[in-house]
Amino acid sequence: MKYCSHCQSELIITIPSGDNRERYTCSVCGTIFYQNPRIIAGCIPLYKERVLLCRRAIEPRKGYWTLPAGFMENGESTVEAARRETWEEALAKVDIGNLFSICNIPRLNQVHLYYLANLPDPEFGVGAESLEVDLFCEADVPWQKLSFSTVKQSLQRFFHDRETGQKLLHHIDL
Amino acid sequence: MKYCSHCQSELIITIPSGDNRERYTCSVCGTIFYQNPRIIAGCIPLYKERVLLCRRAIEPRKGYWTLPAGFMENGESTVEAARRETWEEALAKVDIGNLFSICNIPRLNQVHLYYLANLPDPEFGVGAESLEVDLFCEADVPWQKLSFSTVKQSLQRFFHDRETGQKLLHHIDL
Repeated sequence: MKYCSHCQSELIITIPSGDNRERYTCSVCGTIFYQNPRIIAGCIPLYKERVLLCRRAIEPRKGYWTLPAGFMENGESTVEAARRETWEEALAKVDIGNLFSICNIPRLNQVHLYYLANLPDPEFGVGAESLEVDLFCEADVPWQKLSFSTVKQSLQRFFHDRETGQKLLHHIDL
Repeated sequence: MKYCSHCQSELIITIPSGDNRERYTCSVCGTIFYQNPRIIAGCIPLYKERVLLCRRAIEPRKGYWTLPAGFMENGESTVEAARRETWEEALAKVDIGNLFSICNIPRLNQVHLYYLANLPDPEFGVGAESLEVDLFCEADVPWQKLSFSTVKQSLQRFFHDRETGQKLLHHIDL
């Protein structure tokens, strides 16, 4: 960031009055540009005993398998974001249930939220950001070809909880 | 937003290739400026039977009582953000427990996260953004002078759950 998006002037990095950390600030109009973590919302869509996964058609981790998830947009709720991403990536209409995991990745300024979800019918397709979409039972999950740690850890805990009957919200710090 | 913060050129509003919604995009260098919801992290600090509240010294809702909470910063986790905000606003060191509520406010592009928290000792003070800080039992909470719906609803559900022994994660959509 170099220039003010309001008045085109040069930005400086300074601690604004009343604040306690450095911000990009406009040297002319005074606008402060705060930068904050972003939310990735997704779900663990379940049809009977099987989980719906998507193989990514885009970077990062193109070709690897993932749970449907993506950046939450302005104007929607976390549940709406998880539902929309599942539609966009897997052409699947899910019923969103309880929140299953909150994954913090401070290094990337991201918070990932995965909801449990029910896929009422085995109806899905290959969305624009996917190469393949399919249902997997636990033994068939491509564990070595999963896209992200958040996905791997959420899936591992999901299958573990299903076995033990545990119902927890998981905090996963990466 | 009118100008590119990288190259100073004018921004246009367009749907980027592969996307499905309008974004601010630089007409010269092509940078896309995504805008996403922000997280407000806070907690319900409990000392014995009483909850710690802060009276706001800043707008919005200056003079009204609130739970300690604020914008999550880059480089921290949701739990760290809740702990930091409680320190900054109430000079209180809390042990953060389970997540209690997720409050979606799509109109403001905000997601509020309130954690249960334990205040081990009745040690607190008045942080820079507060006018007063105090402990309240349920009957003494200034219900008519609370700052935000998220705070009011989270507190109401907290006292309700305490009475009924219910342990739920609450989704509050406003």
